[in-house]
Amino acid sequence: MSYRIEKDTMGEVQVPADKYWGAQTERSRNNFKIGPEASMPKEIIYAFAYLKKAAAQANHDLGVLTADKRDLIGKVCDEILTGSLDQEFPLVIWQTGSGTQSNMNVNEVIAYRAHVLHGGQLTDEKKVLHPNDDVNKSQSSNDTFPTAMHIAAYKQVVDITLPGMKKLRDTLAKKSETYKTLVKTGRTHFMDATPLTLGQEFSGYVQQIDNSMRAIKNALEVVRELALGGTAVGTGLNTPKGYDVLVAKKIADLTGLPFVTAPNKFEALAAHDAMVELSGALKRAAVSFMKIANDIRMLSSGPRSGIGEIVIPDNEPGSSIMPGKVNPTQPEALTMVCAQVIGNDVAVSIGGATGHFELNVFKPVIAANVLQSARLIGDACVSFNDKCAEGIVPNEPVIKQHLENSLMLVTSLNTHIGYENAAKIAKKAHKENKTLREAAVELGLLTSEQFDEWVRPEKMVGSLD
Amino acid sequence: MSYRIEKDTMGEVQVPADKYWGAQTERSRNNFKIGPEASMPKEIIYAFAYLKKAAAQANHDLGVLTADKRDLIGKVCDEILTGSLDQEFPLVIWQTGSGTQSNMNVNEVIAYRAHVLHGGQLTDEKKVLHPNDDVNKSQSSNDTFPTAMHIAAYKQVVDITLPGMKKLRDTLAKKSETYKTLVKTGRTHFMDATPLTLGQEFSGYVQQIDNSMRAIKNALEVVRELALGGTAVGTGLNTPKGYDVLVAKKIADLTGLPFVTAPNKFEALAAHDAMVELSGALKRAAVSFMKIANDIRMLSSGPRSGIGEIVIPDNEPGSSIMPGKVNPTQPEALTMVCAQVIGNDVAVSIGGATGHFELNVFKPVIAANVLQSARLIGDACVSFNDKCAEGIVPNEPVIKQHLENSLMLVTSLNTHIGYENAAKIAKKAHKENKTLREAAVELGLLTSEQFDEWVRPEKMVGSLD
Amino acid sequence: MSYRIEKDTMGEVQVPADKYWGAQTERSRNNFKIGPEASMPKEIIYAFAYLKKAAAQANHDLGVLTADKRDLIGKVCDEILTGSLDQEFPLVIWQTGSGTQSNMNVNEVIAYRAHVLHGGQLTDEKKVLHPNDDVNKSQSSNDTFPTAMHIAAYKQVVDITLPGMKKLRDTLAKKSETYKTLVKTGRTHFMDATPLTLGQEFSGYVQQIDNSMRAIKNALEVVRELALGGTAVGTGLNTPKGYDVLVAKKIADLTGLPFVTAPNKFEALAAHDAMVELSGALKRAAVSFMKIANDIRMLSSGPRSGIGEIVIPDNEPGSSIMPGKVNPTQPEALTMVCAQVIGNDVAVSIGGATGHFELNVFKPVIAANVLQSARLIGDACVSFNDKCAEGIVPNEPVIKQHLENSLMLVTSLNTHIGYENAAKIAKKAHKENKTLREAAVELGLLTSEQFDEWVRPEKMVGSLD
Amino acid sequence: MSYRIEKDTMGEVQVPADKYWGAQTERSRNNFKIGPEASMPKEIIYAFAYLKKAAAQANHDLGVLTADKRDLIGKVCDEILTGSLDQEFPLVIWQTGSGTQSNMNVNEVIAYRAHVLHGGQLTDEKKVLHPNDDVNKSQSSNDTFPTAMHIAAYKQVVDITLPGMKKLRDTLAKKSETYKTLVKTGRTHFMDATPLTLGQEFSGYVQQIDNSMRAIKNALEVVRELALGGTAVGTGLNTPKGYDVLVAKKIADLTGLPFVTAPNKFEALAAHDAMVELSGALKRAAVSFMKIANDIRMLSSGPRSGIGEIVIPDNEPGSSIMPGKVNPTQPEALTMVCAQVIGNDVAVSIGGATGHFELNVFKPVIAANVLQSARLIGDACVSFNDKCAEGIVPNEPVIKQHLENSLMLVTSLNTHIGYENAAKIAKKAHKENKTLREAAVELGLLTSEQFDEWVRPEKMVGSLD
Repeated sequence: MSYRIEKDTMGEVQVPADKYWGAQTERSRNNFKIGPEASMPKEIIYAFAYLKKAAAQANHDLGVLTADKRDLIGKVCDEILTGSLDQEFPLVIWQTGSGTQSNMNVNEVIAYRAHVLHGGQLTDEKKVLHPNDDVNKSQSSNDTFPTAMHIAAYKQVVDITLPGMKKLRDTLAKKSETYKTLVKTGRTHFMDATPLTLGQEFSGYVQQIDNSMRAIKNALEVVRELALGGTAVGTGLNTPKGYDVLVAKKIADLTGLPFVTAPNKFEALAAHDAMVELSGALKRAAVSFMKIANDIRMLSSGPRSGIGEIVIPDNEPGSSIMPGKVNPTQPEALTMVCAQVIGNDVAVSIGGATGHFELNVFKPVIAANVLQSARLIGDACVSFNDKCAEGIVPNEPVIKQHLENSLMLVTSLNTHIGYENAAKIAKKAHKENKTLREAAVELGLLTSEQFDEWVRPEKMVGSLD
Repeated sequence: MSYRIEKDTMGEVQVPADKYWGAQTERSRNNFKIGPEASMPKEIIYAFAYLKKAAAQANHDLGVLTADKRDLIGKVCDEILTGSLDQEFPLVIWQTGSGTQSNMNVNEVIAYRAHVLHGGQLTDEKKVLHPNDDVNKSQSSNDTFPTAMHIAAYKQVVDITLPGMKKLRDTLAKKSETYKTLVKTGRTHFMDATPLTLGQEFSGYVQQIDNSMRAIKNALEVVRELALGGTAVGTGLNTPKGYDVLVAKKIADLTGLPFVTAPNKFEALAAHDAMVELSGALKRAAVSFMKIANDIRMLSSGPRSGIGEIVIPDNEPGSSIMPGKVNPTQPEALTMVCAQVIGNDVAVSIGGATGHFELNVFKPVIAANVLQSARLIGDACVSFNDKCAEGIVPNEPVIKQHLENSLMLVTSLNTHIGYENAAKIAKKAHKENKTLREAAVELGLLTSEQFDEWVRPEKMVGSLD
Repeated sequence: MSYRIEKDTMGEVQVPADKYWGAQTERSRNNFKIGPEASMPKEIIYAFAYLKKAAAQANHDLGVLTADKRDLIGKVCDEILTGSLDQEFPLVIWQTGSGTQSNMNVNEVIAYRAHVLHGGQLTDEKKVLHPNDDVNKSQSSNDTFPTAMHIAAYKQVVDITLPGMKKLRDTLAKKSETYKTLVKTGRTHFMDATPLTLGQEFSGYVQQIDNSMRAIKNALEVVRELALGGTAVGTGLNTPKGYDVLVAKKIADLTGLPFVTAPNKFEALAAHDAMVELSGALKRAAVSFMKIANDIRMLSSGPRSGIGEIVIPDNEPGSSIMPGKVNPTQPEALTMVCAQVIGNDVAVSIGGATGHFELNVFKPVIAANVLQSARLIGDACVSFNDKCAEGIVPNEPVIKQHLENSLMLVTSLNTHIGYENAAKIAKKAHKENKTLREAAVELGLLTSEQFDEWVRPEKMVGSLD
Repeated sequence: MSYRIEKDTMGEVQVPADKYWGAQTERSRNNFKIGPEASMPKEIIYAFAYLKKAAAQANHDLGVLTADKRDLIGKVCDEILTGSLDQEFPLVIWQTGSGTQSNMNVNEVIAYRAHVLHGGQLTDEKKVLHPNDDVNKSQSSNDTFPTAMHIAAYKQVVDITLPGMKKLRDTLAKKSETYKTLVKTGRTHFMDATPLTLGQEFSGYVQQIDNSMRAIKNALEVVRELALGGTAVGTGLNTPKGYDVLVAKKIADLTGLPFVTAPNKFEALAAHDAMVELSGALKRAAVSFMKIANDIRMLSSGPRSGIGEIVIPDNEPGSSIMPGKVNPTQPEALTMVCAQVIGNDVAVSIGGATGHFELNVFKPVIAANVLQSARLIGDACVSFNDKCAEGIVPNEPVIKQHLENSLMLVTSLNTHIGYENAAKIAKKAHKENKTLREAAVELGLLTSEQFDEWVRPEKMVGSLD
C-alpha cells in the first residue's frame, strides 16, 4: 500500500495515499483497533454532513467564512450524503468518548476532498480548506458530536422506527376490526378465563403500540434540541453572535426536521439525557412488542397440541430435521430484537450516567445503541407486519371448541347465584369432566333454561363499539 | 395463638382469632413465605382503600349496592387510610402475579371489619358484607390491582418524587444564579478545558432536573388511566353500564388527582406499559442525578489533594479510623439510589415484557419497584438538598488558582493566530511548565499586550443572561 | 420522647434516652431519611456481630486489647446474634457508601450496651469501652463493612439459597425419575416437535439447577475472602502483625464457614467484584428458574383450552371474580422473583463499576441487593417446591392424545425415505387434517406396515438410562 | 442480476445465479430484512465449518456417510475457514430464534460448493450432496446452532478475551512492581486518605483482572459442553449410537480445544445458561475494567487543575477546538466497551430466560452479544495496554506534594493519642490551613519530635513484600 504524509499538531503521520482522510483519522485508526473496522454508524457520518454544511452556511451568513469555502464544504457534504464517500470513514465506536476523531475524520475528508474538487492534489502540503480552522469553524467535537447524535437519532426514528410501528399498528387495527365479533376464550394466568373477542384482544395490541409511539414522540421533543453553538464547554467560545440559533435553523432547513438550538448548552454537552430518554421510550416499545409477539407465537402454537387459535403464514421450512414443521419465526425475530433493545437501554443508561463535569464521554456508545435500537424496531415491525401480521387468520373451529368447553363461562352466573355457588358448579364440572350445564343442573342451582339464558358467551364480551 | 375458622370456596382455614383477614389471606400467607412478611407496599393497600370506597359509591349510584353497604365499606376504607389497620395486611410481593390475594386481603378486611363495626363478631359465620359479592362487586383482581398500582404510583410521584426533585432543582437554580459570574476552569474528559462560570455549570444540572421532571409528567399522562371496569379480561363483565367512567371519577374525587378510565381495558390488564414508562422516566432522572451527584462529589474532593473547587457541609465524622475526615456522604446516598433505580427499571421491564394474553402476572413486582424508585428519588433529593446542596459554597482561592493556571485559555487565540499556532503555545507551556504568556511570547507568536487583550477568561464564558 | 446527650468528634447530639446507640448513629438517622427506617439488612448487623467478636479476640491474642474488654465485646455480640437488640439498628441502606455509620452504629451499641452490662448508666460520660478505640480497634469501616458483606452473603447463600435450590432440584430429579418413560410430544418454537419423555424434559431442569448451583459455589470461592485487616486503604495501618490472617480464622471459627483473609486488601476495599460475581451467579440461577417456572406454568395451562399436560396443586381460589379458577401461582411468584434478581444484578453491577481509587462507596446498595436476591431465590424455591413441584402429576390422557396426533412423528421417517418425502407426508396430513399414516399411505411413500414399524414414539426418545 | 431456480420443501425460489446458497437461505434473506445484511457473526459461520466437518467424519466413522461425501464436506469446510466464502453467508441475527436458516445456509453452501468442486454446475437439479440428508446428517438446527455458539464463544474467549486481559494484567503487574515503594496519598470517598504506594494501588487492579479471568475460565467449563447429538429435542433421534461423544471429540481435535459432549442434551437445547454464565463473567470483567479505567482517567487528570499523579501517553490531539489538549482516550474507549458489555449481559439474560419447553429460540441474539462482549473486552484491553498502560509513569512532584499536605497522616497517631485527639489535630489543621505538625504542637498533644517519629508516611503503608 502506498502512503502520503499528513501532519497535525503532534507531527507527521503516514496515511494511505488514496484516502481523503488525514493525520488525526489515521492516528485514531491505529490507536483504536477494537472490534470490526468502521463501526461508527453511517447515520452519524451523514448527520455530520448536514451539520457541517449548515455550519458553513451559518458561518458565512455571520461573516466568518467566505462564500467559496461555504460552497466547497457544502459540495462535499452533499457527496457524503449520497454514500459515495462511505469508504472514507474507517473509525470505530470505541474511540475517544467525545467522538473527537470522528468529527476530525469528517473535517479532514471535507477539507481534503474539497481540495481535490478544487483542482488540488492530496499530496499538496497546503490545502484549500483547513480541517480545524475552516470546516470546524465555530465548532468543537464537544458540540458537533452530540448534535450529530440528535440529528441521526431523530431521523432514524421518523424515517424508520415510527413508520414501521405505524404499519404494524394499522394492520393489527384492521385485524381488530375484522374480528371484532369473533368470540373466543380469554386467558389469564395462562389459564382459561372469561371470553372476549379476537378483535378485542388485538385492540389491546393496537393501544400498546399507540402508547409506545406517543412515548417515542415525547422523547423526540428533547432530541430535536441541538448542542451546536456550545463549542468546547457550552459557553459558545469562538462562535459569532446568533450562531447557535441560526445553525439549528439551517439544519432544520436541510433536513426538513424541526430542530432548534438547545436552551442550555451546558446540559447538552455534559449529559445525554435526551438520548437516554429516547432509548427508554424505545425500550418501552420493546416491552410492548415482546408481549404482542409472545401472544401471537403462543396463539398460533400447535398445530395439534398447542393453543392453535390463530394461523400465521408459513414462510420457510421450519426445521432442518423435522419435515413439514412450521415455526413462528417472525415473532422470534421480533422478540430477539426486543431483548437487544432492552439490553441496549442499559448500556445507554450507564453511558448517560457516567459523564463528568462539562462533557459526557460515552457519546459514541450511546449513539450506536440508540441508533441500533431505533433501526431494529422499525425494521422488525415491517418484517413482522409483512410476513406475519398481515396473514394472520383465526382458526375458527379451534376457537369455537375452546370457547364451548370453557369452565369460566360460569362467571356470568355470579350476579345470579353468587360467587360461591358459581364456584361449586365450575369445580364439579372440572372434577367430573362435565359441561357446566350438566354440573349446574345436577347441583340444583339453576335450571337448564336458566343456564341457556344466563350463560351466553356473546353477551359476556361487553360493548363492541 | 388462638384461631377461628374461616371458609372460602376451597374449604376451611384456621385464621388468627384477632385478625380481620379471612381464608384467602391466610392461605396466601402460608403459601408464600418468600422474603420478609408484609412486603406488599403499604401504598398499594391505601390505593385499594380509595378504590374500594369509590367502587362502593359507583355501585350504589348505579343501583347494585345498598346505601348501607356502601357506607360500611367507605367507613373501613377511611380507617385503612389512617394507617390503623396496617397490621391486617400481612401478604408479600411474591404471591400470585395478579395480586389476587392482596385484593382479597382488602376485601376480607373490609368485610370483616365492617361486620365488627356493625356489631357482629369475627366468629359469626355469616357476615354483614361478603368479600366477593359486596366488597369486590363489579370488580376483579385483574382490574383492581392495576388500578391500585396506578393510584399508588401517581400519588407517590406527585406527593414525594416531584416535590423532592423540585426542591433540589430550586436550590441548584439559586446557586446557579448566585455564582453566575464566578469564572472557573471547565473540564472535559476530566481534563482542564476552557472556562465557564460556576453558575453555568450548575445551570446544566437545573436543566437536567427540569427535563427529567417533564419526562416523569409525560409518563403520568398514561398512569392516570385506570383499568377499573375491565373486570376479568377487559370486557367489563358483571359491571353495570357506565361503571368504568363513573368509578374513575369517584377515585379522582377521593384522591384529588386527575384519574380517568382507561380507553382500552384489554391493554390496561394485559400490559403494564404505563408503569414501564414511568419506571423509564424515573430511571432517566436517576441517570441525571448520578451525573449531578458525581460532579458534586468530585468538585468537593480534597481537601488538599483533590479538585476542591467547592465545599460541601460536614454532617458526620467521615471515618471510623481516619480522624477528622469529611466525606461527600449525601452524593454517595444519592448515587446508590440511582444505581437501585436503574436496576429496578430492568426488573420492571422484564415484568412488563412477560405478560401473556389477557393478563400480565408480574403486577406486584412491577408495583413494588416503581413505588420504591419513586420514593427513593424523592427522599434522596430532599436529603441531598437539605444536607448538602443548600450548603454548597465555592472554594474561591482554589477556583482562582486553577483558572489562572489553565493551559486551555489558549483556545481564545484560535481566532487570532489559528489552531495550530495556539497548540504550539499550549504544548510549550505544558512541556516547560511555563505560563501561556511566557510560552506565547517566547515563540514570538504574539506580544504580551496582545496576550492580555485576547486571553481573558471572563470574556470566554459567553453571555451570562 | 426523652433524650440524653452523646458526643463525637463533631460535638454533642441528642439521642433517645433508652437507645444504646450514640452520636454518630443519631446523626446518620437524621441525615438520611431516605425510604423506610432501618432498611440496612439485619444480616449485615449479625455479620458485624461475628466480626466485632472475632476482632476483639484477635486483638486480645495479639496483645492490644485486654481480656475484660474482649469478653465484654463478645458478650454484646452474642446478644446481637440472638436478635434481642434488633431495635438498636435504625439506619438505612441509603447512607454513606462505605457503610461507615452502620459500622459506628454497631461500635456504639456494643460500647454502650457493654457499659450497661458492666453496671454503668447510659448517661455516664465515660463508658467502659470506646466505640472507636476499643470496639473498632484494628479496624476501619472500609474493611469491616466489606467483611460484613461477605460474611452475610456467604451465610445467606449457604443457609437459604443453596438448600432451597437443592430441595427443588431433588424434587424435580425425583419427578424426572418417576416419569422417565412417559412419552409425550416435544415442543420447539412453542410448536409440536418430536417426542421425548416427561422425565427427560424434567431432567433438563435438574441440569439447569445443578449448573446454577455450581456457578454460585464458584462465586463463593471469592466471597469467602475477607477484607478485614486492610483498615483504611488496604495497607493494614494500625493493625498488629498477623492480625488479618488471625481475625479471618476467628471469623471462620465463629461462623463455621471457610473464611480466609483476602490475598489483596487493596482490591478487597476498592472493588466488590466478588459480590458482583455472586450476584451474577444468582442472576444465572434466576434465568434458569424463569425458564423452568414458565414451562411448568405453560404445561399446566388449561384446564380445557391450554396445553394441559401436567396438573399442579390448587392452593387457593384463583380469581376474585371467576369462580373455580385455579392459577399457577407458585410459578408466578418464582418468575417475579427472577425478574427482581435480574434487575438487582444491574444495580449491583453499576455499584460495583463505580468505585474510585481506594474505596468503593456503593457498599450498602450492593450488599442489600445481593442479600435480597439470595434470600428470594432460596425462599421461592422452597415455596415452589412445597406448594407446586412436589404435587406435579402428569395429565396422561392429554399427553397421550397430543402424542398420537403429532405430525412430527414423521421425523423418524427421514432416515428411511429422506427429509423431502417425509415433509410431503407431514404437509399433506396437516393440510387435509389426516393422520400421518393416512397421508403416508395415500402418497404411496410407504406401506401401513412400514409406518407401524418405523413410526414408534417410544423408539424416538433415545436411551432412557 | 441473474438468477437460478432452487427448490426446498416449500417450492421454488429464485437465487442469485453466482451464489452457492440455496432456497432456504434465500427465503430467509427475503423474510428478514432487519438491520444491516450479513450481521450473523462470522465466528458462528466458522464454528459451523468445524462442526460440519466433524459431523461428517463422525457419520463416516459410524457408517452412515460415505468417505467421498465426508471428504467433500471437509473440503468445503476448510475453504470456509480460510474466509474465502464469507460472501456466501448473507443472513442476519434477527431470523428464526433457533438459527435454523443459518444452519441451512451452511448446509446449502457446503452442498452446492461441493457440487461445483466435484465438477457440477450450480444449475444442476441434482447435486452431489443433499443439504439436509448429507450435510445435516445426524443433526438438527436445534443442536448444531448451540454447538456453534459454544465453539465460537470458547474460541473467541481463548483467542481474544483472555490473552488481551492477560497482556494488560501483566503490564499493570509490572507497574505495580516498579512503583512498589512510591508512597502517595490514598483516596477514599474521593477524599484524601491515609497513604499507600502506587504499586499497591496497581496491585488491586491486577487482583481484579486475575479474579475476572478466573471467573471467565470457570464459565468456560460449561461452554465446552456441546449440544451436538441431541438433534431436534435432545433425544438424539436419527443419530447413530455413540455419535454425540465421537463428534465432540472430532470437534475437539479439529479446534484443539477441550470440547466434550454435554451430559444433558435437553438442557443444552432448551436453555443457554452456559452462555448466560459466560456473559455474566464477561460482565464481571467489565465491572472490573470500568473501575480500573476510571481510576487511570482520574489519576491522570489535569494537567494543572486535576489530581495529576500519573502521566499517560499522548496519542492524538485531544480537541478539535482546544489546542494542545490531551485526553485519556484509551480509558474512554475501554469504559464505553464496559457499558456495552453490561448492557449486552442484560440482553443475553432476557434471551436466556425466555426459552420454552425443548428449545430456546433466542440463540442468535445470545450468540451475537456474547461474541461481541468477548471481542470488545479482548481488543480494548490490548488497545488500552499498548497505547496507555505501558506508558504510564508517575508524576512524582505532584505525588510528593499531595502526600506531604495530607491531613490523613494523622491516622498514625490514633494508637498513640486516641482517635478523638487525633481528630482535633486534623480539624484544626484543616480549619486554619496549617500543617499537621503545627496543629499538633499548638494543641499540646505531642511534641514536634514525637510527630516526626510517629507520622511517617513510609511506615504507614504496611508490608511491601
